[in-house]
Amino acid sequence: MEKKDIFMKGFKAASIAAGLKKNKAADMTLIYSEREAVAAAVFTTNKVKAAPVQISMEHIIKGKARAIIANAGNANACTGSEGINNARLTAELTARELGIKPEDVLVASTGVIGAQLDMDKVANAIPGLVKGLSYDNIPLAADAIMTTDSFPKISIFEGKAGGSSYRTLGIAKGAGMIMPNMATMLSFILTDVNIDNHQLKKALSYSVDKTFNRITVDGDTSTNDTVFIMANGTAGNNALNTDDYDGFRKGLQDVMKDLSNMIIKDGEGATKLVFITVKGAASENDAMTAARNIANSYLVKTAFYGQDANWGRIMAALGRSGIAMEENRVSILIEDIKIVEGGLAIDPDREKMAAEKMKNRSFSVSIDLNIGNHEYNVTTCDLTHEYVSINANYRT
Amino acid sequence: MEKKDIFMKGFKAASIAAGLKKNKAADMTLIYSEREAVAAAVFTTNKVKAAPVQISMEHIIKGKARAIIANAGNANACTGSEGINNARLTAELTARELGIKPEDVLVASTGVIGAQLDMDKVANAIPGLVKGLSYDNIPLAADAIMTTDSFPKISIFEGKAGGSSYRTLGIAKGAGMIMPNMATMLSFILTDVNIDNHQLKKALSYSVDKTFNRITVDGDTSTNDTVFIMANGTAGNNALNTDDYDGFRKGLQDVMKDLSNMIIKDGEGATKLVFITVKGAASENDAMTAARNIANSYLVKTAFYGQDANWGRIMAALGRSGIAMEENRVSILIEDIKIVEGGLAIDPDREKMAAEKMKNRSFSVSIDLNIGNHEYNVTTCDLTHEYVSINANYRT
Repeated sequence: MEKKDIFMKGFKAASIAAGLKKNKAADMTLIYSEREAVAAAVFTTNKVKAAPVQISMEHIIKGKARAIIANAGNANACTGSEGINNARLTAELTARELGIKPEDVLVASTGVIGAQLDMDKVANAIPGLVKGLSYDNIPLAADAIMTTDSFPKISIFEGKAGGSSYRTLGIAKGAGMIMPNMATMLSFILTDVNIDNHQLKKALSYSVDKTFNRITVDGDTSTNDTVFIMANGTAGNNALNTDDYDGFRKGLQDVMKDLSNMIIKDGEGATKLVFITVKGAASENDAMTAARNIANSYLVKTAFYGQDANWGRIMAALGRSGIAMEENRVSILIEDIKIVEGGLAIDPDREKMAAEKMKNRSFSVSIDLNIGNHEYNVTTCDLTHEYVSINANYRT
Repeated sequence: MEKKDIFMKGFKAASIAAGLKKNKAADMTLIYSEREAVAAAVFTTNKVKAAPVQISMEHIIKGKARAIIANAGNANACTGSEGINNARLTAELTARELGIKPEDVLVASTGVIGAQLDMDKVANAIPGLVKGLSYDNIPLAADAIMTTDSFPKISIFEGKAGGSSYRTLGIAKGAGMIMPNMATMLSFILTDVNIDNHQLKKALSYSVDKTFNRITVDGDTSTNDTVFIMANGTAGNNALNTDDYDGFRKGLQDVMKDLSNMIIKDGEGATKLVFITVKGAASENDAMTAARNIANSYLVKTAFYGQDANWGRIMAALGRSGIAMEENRVSILIEDIKIVEGGLAIDPDREKMAAEKMKNRSFSVSIDLNIGNHEYNVTTCDLTHEYVSINANYRT
């Protein structure tokens, strides 16, 4: 997509290097809606919630917002009451500079856990952010929220509703600590559609469940996961009827699916993007448990890295997941190559053919338990030397 | 320990290179008790159970055994009815050659999942194993069950009971797919104590719970995990009274603890042995869940590798584990250095001191939740480049 297409009517953005990242890259971003936007959010399920998550949970209650202020380099998590005060102060300083109310500001942070935010740097940066606000700067916002990400993540959907054209634009950052029920994952979605708060919340939670909650890099759910959506109604469409709503929801889901796949592609050290489907399960919960167990298994993920159709590790992961299963009913496919039927290897040639498919950057693994009709899918990546390097050296 | 001390009265052993391992190393072992031994076993909790596990579960029911036949190089798991027949045939061929009943033979396998055992090789090897039986060969048995292990694992306890001296000797193999509720872990324990079946089972399951079930390399529970214990009564002691039983149980636990630590030290690619304790939990189950979540976290394990006192990752693992906790009550120590109190970093110097401790080959991490009085400990290792290398290339 061309840079000039990355904008959203009525939204401005800015980014700045506040000095929170060691490498002096841009590390703070502000997104501002010219008029009050309908807003909704989904947050981490981790019981240890970062300060900005706690503050944003308060601010989102009224279902409206004007601005998002976010920083990378410091998660402001495990920082106690000082951290809470700092997150609150960040919202206040931003609101003051913008001439809006603190409760209209949503806050998000990502980075190292357990260190206090340097509020001098934050306070110094905010006036510059406000001054820098521009319709053209959404790509810079996507850059500024990156931590170990290797590329910015942006996706756009264009649709029609209630007689008008509208767009939905999302940005996100990954890339480690990614696990269903989110991740050190921040995603900010902007749309100019005119939508009511109930519809917006419903579409957001539906889409998160189908996308961000189905990706995993390492099974570690972060303290800071946040998805914000703001809809400013600038498209001027009439109220959404059922078809319009469905169209909006699908578009939102597409944007989030797109961002999810980018997050996994950019998973720390990842060389493979793997689509895992478990079907034929006795319940959806079983399908989900099985898919997540496979997707998070150290041994399965290293086999992906090794391009080895080592289905025994998949069977072992199924067996230890505690789900209802009968070993002799399981079949396993890699792409369209069936390698296991009735719990047994079909023949060694099939495994070689499957291993060929695994040389691609992305491939699917489908497991049929053949005992029910429930299904679940998870997208994951491989476990590589580079993952270890990134995470053994993150703070040093 | 000197090689001449590695023996057990009344037990002979042999090993042979049957050709099941690619590298032509010894890959089958036979352990034989001259007289009928009281026997007990603990098996994997994985629902996908290897054929030898299924056969041994049948054979152990009567609480007696004469022999253990084990192979490395092939797990005989996910091999269907042909695999079951092969495990049964292995016991039969062994029994025939020894002149005992097939039900007196326990079977164990470890290695690649999903391939059928080459029964020609197995059948050819068994007569040689029986011919090779000798009191001196227990060290060779420890060698023959190794897969990715880098050293054989042997531990001995000497005790007194009912007026006689006795010994308990254990061998084990690790080294990946290690997770509470066992691992691709085989351990065979031999003792000459005179003990009844009830006492033996009780001591075994108690000790497994405190040792093998508290180690984890990668959270992957294998299809083949097996602990066998055989007590031949050669020591000639009187029936065990309570004190004698306690002494035996403690000795058994020591042997298993010793073997457990060796397994983690030899965890695939491991450079660190880490003792994790979670205390102050609201329930033992919470303490266990928290300890296991920390011990299996990709991010915590890479931080161990990086010798980084990155306690934020520990807090994040606690938070996502779903246990009852209050962030602002948590304290964390590395060895004797308290780095977190009330959920907050104490000071950066402490983290540096803790990082110094992490340069050692082994160190402890203690988490106090401060909301209850339950405790659990898990021993784990770090996640390293070498782990990825070993497991990405295991079959190739």
